[in-house]
Amino acid sequence: MQPLGSVERAELQSRAQQLREEYEKFKDKHLSLDMSRGKPCPKQLDLSNDLLTAVGPGQYLDDKGEDCRNYGLLSGIEDMKRVFSEMLDIPAKNIIVGGNSSLTLMFDTFARAYMKGLASSSKPWSQCGKIKILAPVPGYDRHFSVTEYFGAELINIPMDQNGPDMDLVEKLAREDESVKGILCVPVYSNPDGIVYSDETVRRLAAMDCAADDFTIIWDNAYCVHHLYPDYRPKLPSILEECKKYGHETRPLVFASTSKITMAGSGVACIAANDASIGNILDTLKISTISYDKMNQLRHARFLRGREGIEKLMAAHAEIIRPKFEMALGIFRRELGGLPGVHWTEPKGGYFISMYALPGTAKRVHQLCREAGVTLTAAGASFPYGVDPQDSNLRIAPTYPPLEELCLACELLCICIKLAAAEKALEA
Amino acid sequence: MQPLGSVERAELQSRAQQLREEYEKFKDKHLSLDMSRGKPCPKQLDLSNDLLTAVGPGQYLDDKGEDCRNYGLLSGIEDMKRVFSEMLDIPAKNIIVGGNSSLTLMFDTFARAYMKGLASSSKPWSQCGKIKILAPVPGYDRHFSVTEYFGAELINIPMDQNGPDMDLVEKLAREDESVKGILCVPVYSNPDGIVYSDETVRRLAAMDCAADDFTIIWDNAYCVHHLYPDYRPKLPSILEECKKYGHETRPLVFASTSKITMAGSGVACIAANDASIGNILDTLKISTISYDKMNQLRHARFLRGREGIEKLMAAHAEIIRPKFEMALGIFRRELGGLPGVHWTEPKGGYFISMYALPGTAKRVHQLCREAGVTLTAAGASFPYGVDPQDSNLRIAPTYPPLEELCLACELLCICIKLAAAEKALEA
Repeated sequence: MQPLGSVERAELQSRAQQLREEYEKFKDKHLSLDMSRGKPCPKQLDLSNDLLTAVGPGQYLDDKGEDCRNYGLLSGIEDMKRVFSEMLDIPAKNIIVGGNSSLTLMFDTFARAYMKGLASSSKPWSQCGKIKILAPVPGYDRHFSVTEYFGAELINIPMDQNGPDMDLVEKLAREDESVKGILCVPVYSNPDGIVYSDETVRRLAAMDCAADDFTIIWDNAYCVHHLYPDYRPKLPSILEECKKYGHETRPLVFASTSKITMAGSGVACIAANDASIGNILDTLKISTISYDKMNQLRHARFLRGREGIEKLMAAHAEIIRPKFEMALGIFRRELGGLPGVHWTEPKGGYFISMYALPGTAKRVHQLCREAGVTLTAAGASFPYGVDPQDSNLRIAPTYPPLEELCLACELLCICIKLAAAEKALEA
Repeated sequence: MQPLGSVERAELQSRAQQLREEYEKFKDKHLSLDMSRGKPCPKQLDLSNDLLTAVGPGQYLDDKGEDCRNYGLLSGIEDMKRVFSEMLDIPAKNIIVGGNSSLTLMFDTFARAYMKGLASSSKPWSQCGKIKILAPVPGYDRHFSVTEYFGAELINIPMDQNGPDMDLVEKLAREDESVKGILCVPVYSNPDGIVYSDETVRRLAAMDCAADDFTIIWDNAYCVHHLYPDYRPKLPSILEECKKYGHETRPLVFASTSKITMAGSGVACIAANDASIGNILDTLKISTISYDKMNQLRHARFLRGREGIEKLMAAHAEIIRPKFEMALGIFRRELGGLPGVHWTEPKGGYFISMYALPGTAKRVHQLCREAGVTLTAAGASFPYGVDPQDSNLRIAPTYPPLEELCLACELLCICIKLAAAEKALEA
């Protein structure tokens, strides 16, 4: 950056002073707002209140007559497999219905890989030296926590509008057998809202990998989470694509109803080709007798199938679209044209990704916090919490009420501008 | 065994022939009965049908006003901690409420121990060479599957009416630092129905262990599962006892409502002293956002507390006590006085432990199976499926209706006698 001339500096100081005054005014409001986590708001949860009574007294049998109250049916009830099958376009036989958390299913996948190996592993990952996992960035912080927990080394992969940089992914996967997998949120990626292109999906399926057990963690968390009725991206099936190229065991697909019905009381699933399903069940039969089938039945009765889900998701969109649009409107108005600042305008999912002036994200986070607005920690969307640019901030607009969100976004804009001014003055 | 004289042999042959005829008559009934798993019967599950409507529309807040539908509250809701606290006599702060399976909580405990170590571990168990786990026998087959999955070596510990042979336990734990733990079902042990004595509890808590992180897996699965109103054993608190002797991190307590409410849709918990709770949460915060709090709320509302549980368990006892008593009546009548054959007469829990003539349990299992009655595999109650005596058979009388159970027990007695006669003829 060029050193500032004295006129520029004076102007900037005056501008910074003005921003500081605006900031202090916000501080006087004693806000206590949280935009840190992708949580549905109470109105969204209310959409599924009928879930609680979807299975009444005496209605504990599934369509096959199985008593869902008792032990058994390790891989889940057929009724709920069918619902996930319609939602994901994956055959029911390739789906295992789990508990309430797809994150746990992912954690258990890494645990299994490390302790026993996956379907195509010649040995457990714990015996493979330091293993590496490709992390498209920015990405989902909890993916990184899980892989870091197991001691994997995470390698940043830049994202563009088509998904991860596939030239780099192909090169690393081909050349290094310690590269064992990639973390993908293919539809409305967390936090950028990027939808992978068909070609990205094809290349992930087709590429040569040095590791026989290279694994695509395909976290399809937002596959039906469209904000607009006229944009409903539909990706090629990663299972089908991988099978086509002879890489049957490469993909493991995760999804859940956490952001469809009730965030903490949904139903998760893992889907995979036949060999991988066998590998998963080999461990699952040791670790549990069965998941909660009553909650599976409740969900099957409440969601019914693709149509029920689409209707419900449209109702979600009605609630959260105004929040996204209001936030984006404020960003355009307050930050439009500001050099070095940009943000994503997602068509679905749960986040807006804000890029403050490089080198200021941590400062913005601190300013917001000190004025009572909690953002996800700067850097959280990167492995080890380190954003090399110190620029990205993940905005979760769904939870706060509209008025509070408005205040929080206005404050955020002031903090972004103030931090940018402070930085310019440092020069 | 003395070789038989010719008169004895002729008598025995005639006796065996008679038994074989009785056995063939049973075969002609084309039975298809299952006494293999400790599953509650539908009538027992019906006792908790109100669970399904215990939380109606709009009732998703816990006593503290937390929205149980959303993410959060990693260690569970206070309402359900209080219920487990009353049930187990353990402070609520020392309880983490989990998902539907205590087996999964145990599996996750071993996974954590192997990957990261427990609260007092100096290193993960995966770096400790071959570790050994003490297995009081006969014991719970799924405990053995879990520990075998992780590659631990299981060491048989004989049981008597006071629990595991404590002289042997103390010696092994003191002398060998690779001995890392013991698998206990302290109340109505699976399958023998033994209740540990106070002195056994005290010695487990007090003993010197070579391994700093020696762990007592205290699976209190049947702590409120009394068959008779006048016998309600109450053990000293293993957490308190261990703390008293400075072994705060030694015990991990597991329990669930699986055999209180609905077997597959209950709520499980893990309880431990403060340091261990911290160790558990350190991993839990990586592996999930929260367990299903709506099911926790449902259970808290339905069970309410100690009194609610006791009333419910008394109703269970009314249903299953006649099954235990009928089975025991048949065993006494048909097998009483038969040399080498004996069985347990439990006052609670889910099993009767039958000891056939040593060397015949597998044959009895095979005879039963060929006549349409499935028993738990002979040897299943021992590590690696090997009963050194080939004598023990675990009888699970709760699931079949009384008439079917009667047939199954009569067949079992014929098979035990037939196998004994066959064995005598071999001599």
